Order: sequence, then structure tokens, then C-alpha cells
Amino acid sequence: MTELEKSMESLITVFHRYAKEGGNKTTLSKKELKKLIENELPNFLTTQKNPDTVSCIIKDLDQNKDDELDFEEFVPFVAGLTIACEKHFALHHEKKGKK
Amino acid sequence: MTELEKSMESLITVFHRYAKEGGNKTTLSKKELKKLIENELPNFLTTQKNPDTVSCIIKDLDQNKDDELDFEEFVPFVAGLTIACEKHFALHHEKKGKK
Repeated sequence: MTELEKSMESLITVFHRYAKEGGNKTTLSKKELKKLIENELPNFLTTQKNPDTVSCIIKDLDQNKDDELDFEEFVPFVAGLTIACEKHFALHHEKKGKK
Repeated sequence: MTELEKSMESLITVFHRYAKEGGNKTTLSKKELKKLIENELPNFLTTQKNPDTVSCIIKDLDQNKDDELDFEEFVPFVAGLTIACEKHFALHHEKKGKK
């Protein structure tokens, strides 16, 4: 498997590792999403000052309004985060290049 | 770095590995996208019968109509592909479970 294919597989695996825990086994509850962010994105939640961050994320992404995130609703979260990281990286790279 | 963070980093790294080649160093041309798909998603292009697949993909994703894909335009392609893979996986899993 290539690096890109492995990344895609990891995203699916990580989602299901947390989704399968309680309640609906194929979606993330607020509690499961919180756990996923804390364990898998440890640098993300600590930078967020708002204690309601997880609720806000679910509200933003939950298209069918069932208070849970299925995989299709979860992917835009990681996609958006990756785009933000890339912008930060590009900016840093540009600044370094100009020195 | 966690598995999910590594996946996000890989996506950025793979994109830039191909984007930096010719012309605009921060976007994928049609030629660069074709190379990326052939090398990094070897199972994807072979299943597509249409020889114009790469042109169609660019046309679909190229929001600012410059015939190139920047990172923000590229991410939805991988996101959509991952969602399709997950659906396939879930369907397969469900069928297996019912046996």
C-alpha cells in the first residue's frame, strides 16, 4: 500500500476505533469525539480555550442533526484541519525562505 | 505524533512532492496530478476506463478555474475517495457479519 493509501486507511481505522465504543457503533457521539480529539489530536484541543469546543464541532458538522457524526460528517473536520495545517506550514516555509 | 496526525502530515507531504515539480511549485498541474494518482493511488486509475479521468477530476475540483489544483482544492478529492472506500468497507463488513 502507498503512503497516501495508508493515510486514507488510518483515517477510516481511527474513526471506527472510537465509533464502535458505545451506543451507535458506526457513529461518533460527543463523548467519543472528545476522546478521539484528546487522544489522536492532542495538540488541537489544548489550543482551544472554549470548553464547549466539542459541542460546537458536532453542531457544525452534524448534517442530519442526530447529535452523532458518521464517517461522511467526520471527514470534513479532518480535511479542514489538514488545510489549516498546510496553510500554517506554507506560511512558515515562506517566511523561512525569505530570511 | 499520533496515527491521525501522521496521516494528515502524509497528505500534505505527498501533495507537495508532486506539486513542486514543474511550473507553479505549490499547485498540481494535470500532468502532476496524473503522476500522483498513478504512483500513489495505483488501484484508482486502473479501475477507471475513461482516458480523460484526470481532466475530469481537475475540472470538478478546480474552483478558481486556473487548470491547477492547490492543496485546498486537492483535499476534497482525497476526502471523497476515502468516504467511498469507507462505504465499500462498511458494506463488505456488513455482508460478512450477516453470514
